[in-house]
Amino acid sequence: MSQIISFDKVSGILVCQAGCILENLNQYLEEKGFIMPLDLGAKGSCHIGGNVATNAGGLRLLRYGSLRGTVLGLEVVLADGSVLDCLASLRKDNTGYDLKQLFIGSEGTLGVITAVSILCPQKPKAVNLAFLGCQSFTQVLKTFTTCRAMLGEILSAYEFMDDKCMELVKRHLKLSNPVTGSPFYVLIETSGSNSTHDEEKLNNFLEKVMISGLVTDGTVATDEKKIKMLWSLRERITEALTHDGYVYKYDISLPVGKLYDLVTDTRARLGQCAKNVVGYGHLGDGNLHLNITAESYSHSLLDAIEPFVYEWTARCNGSISAEHGLGFKKKCFIQYSRPKEAVFLMQRFKAMLDPKGILNPYKTLPSSS
Amino acid sequence: MSQIISFDKVSGILVCQAGCILENLNQYLEEKGFIMPLDLGAKGSCHIGGNVATNAGGLRLLRYGSLRGTVLGLEVVLADGSVLDCLASLRKDNTGYDLKQLFIGSEGTLGVITAVSILCPQKPKAVNLAFLGCQSFTQVLKTFTTCRAMLGEILSAYEFMDDKCMELVKRHLKLSNPVTGSPFYVLIETSGSNSTHDEEKLNNFLEKVMISGLVTDGTVATDEKKIKMLWSLRERITEALTHDGYVYKYDISLPVGKLYDLVTDTRARLGQCAKNVVGYGHLGDGNLHLNITAESYSHSLLDAIEPFVYEWTARCNGSISAEHGLGFKKKCFIQYSRPKEAVFLMQRFKAMLDPKGILNPYKTLPSSS
Repeated sequence: MSQIISFDKVSGILVCQAGCILENLNQYLEEKGFIMPLDLGAKGSCHIGGNVATNAGGLRLLRYGSLRGTVLGLEVVLADGSVLDCLASLRKDNTGYDLKQLFIGSEGTLGVITAVSILCPQKPKAVNLAFLGCQSFTQVLKTFTTCRAMLGEILSAYEFMDDKCMELVKRHLKLSNPVTGSPFYVLIETSGSNSTHDEEKLNNFLEKVMISGLVTDGTVATDEKKIKMLWSLRERITEALTHDGYVYKYDISLPVGKLYDLVTDTRARLGQCAKNVVGYGHLGDGNLHLNITAESYSHSLLDAIEPFVYEWTARCNGSISAEHGLGFKKKCFIQYSRPKEAVFLMQRFKAMLDPKGILNPYKTLPSSS
Repeated sequence: MSQIISFDKVSGILVCQAGCILENLNQYLEEKGFIMPLDLGAKGSCHIGGNVATNAGGLRLLRYGSLRGTVLGLEVVLADGSVLDCLASLRKDNTGYDLKQLFIGSEGTLGVITAVSILCPQKPKAVNLAFLGCQSFTQVLKTFTTCRAMLGEILSAYEFMDDKCMELVKRHLKLSNPVTGSPFYVLIETSGSNSTHDEEKLNNFLEKVMISGLVTDGTVATDEKKIKMLWSLRERITEALTHDGYVYKYDISLPVGKLYDLVTDTRARLGQCAKNVVGYGHLGDGNLHLNITAESYSHSLLDAIEPFVYEWTARCNGSISAEHGLGFKKKCFIQYSRPKEAVFLMQRFKAMLDPKGILNPYKTLPSSS
């Protein structure tokens, strides 16, 4: 289940079995001048089949789009044991309904993905990273707007994290932040085909945000070692949180302007009951990771968080699960993001494709009774 | 049904009613510094609801991806008259199954799309066009590979057409081709955020392909008037064909290296029975428009074309409808591109969502008996 079936260098289309590890696929592609269109902290252990089943987002979505656009074909084993072969390797195919889409993000509840066909972008010739400090979230937002206008097509990531995140990464993992003293940090990545052009664009942008005061301090990396070091400050936040105690995790989509208000409001609401309330995530995609730590699990703390966080999100027409899915823990909160007619239709699809409920049972959807 | 509901300048997300005309939406967005992620010859008359219902591809797919990635939400009226509200305006949302995907490209057979939420890219600050002549299809392919490597992230279209297309555009529409004497022509568009950088990339590329002999002649446009004129040579091929007689139209996806072999083989097979056999299309997406003209419709000519073209396509694992859909005429040929298990599952979805068969009947799928 971890074999590469084919790779076409002209089209950039990779076909592989579902058990391939994301990082291995990326290494295979890099040798051929391509990369995977998704990247996430768990790349060293996650399987491409699982990535597709959960519609994983990650760090490159801002640039290369979601798996709904890049996955071109799937092979799926259905609940009755039959094999559904939708493993096309074509960029465009409008022959009937696009069945594969139903399995992307269905968390294994409608079928088991056994092979994937995916469109891979070219490996960028130049990658640059900037790690910057901002004095307020408003400045984080203004820096994003400026950056999108000035970096344009070479922008490949715009991540943000608050100073609490950086404190935890320093305390628990001994990682040092080269930029200190700011309440917010942003990590900006550019990927392009011409290093001179890319550096010129990045320098013009940095000059603008430093002079205008949007950014107060920062560092830039072009060599691989420093790039990895700066990325680890962002990628290892999850790991640092697990060392801080019991973690209540929320993965929220919101209109980007309101992204941090949820962190501030949650922090104010919980007060001393929480050890730490931190916010970070994929700002460019409107995706906040809100995490709350405590010495140990407590039911009363959970009651203070839920449904508060979900109600807050629903009021802003956000999503209570941007990229993590619903699984066991969140399936009963689906109504905060989907109308009942939609949930009912999902239940009908589930009943049709898996009438005995044998595929990843008790997940994703509330029971239909 | 032609109202814009909202547009958010930070995220670039447009929400509008289904009856909005594509070109009007684009004009609305351009004033705000954005563009629609799709563009096609029929933009002046087609509705966004129809674009989504048919999963329209068009000229910008190479750069901005398909509607499966850019459409973020839909409002759909179902066969029982109920309204399914999936009109989210979020870049990421993994709460249950992605129902809207089933309606994208279903040609109105599962529901009637009444509103659309779509992610719009920023309007590029610089657009350049190159119209080039190549002496063989192999050179068209090599020029594509070179162009993708050297233009990278600024490449926004790579279209090709054979000299027959250019002859018809000249004869029937009196458009003059500034580059003559080549059996193949390619139209390359760049869209970027820095005109100096973009022109430098384009000039380096042109120098390379001219010196290496991949391209024998060409012209470049940076001003809007000449850009429009060059685009019209490509966009008005369909119109020129209608003046040439009865047109048999095929819209095929193939591995890009085999794209033109189908035109050559069809031309050889039909000989004097056809007036003209022409090939053009979205080479960067592996999408060929094969068109055959005759003085008038003839059943014997149709028999010579079909199923020959479909069998040829199926042998290469291609698609018999890349972007046009199946409609009335092609629904019974779906088996050339989809296995019977997939067609059966599509029929079950249709039966579940539209048990009385009242939505766009007799289209897309063969009858299930």
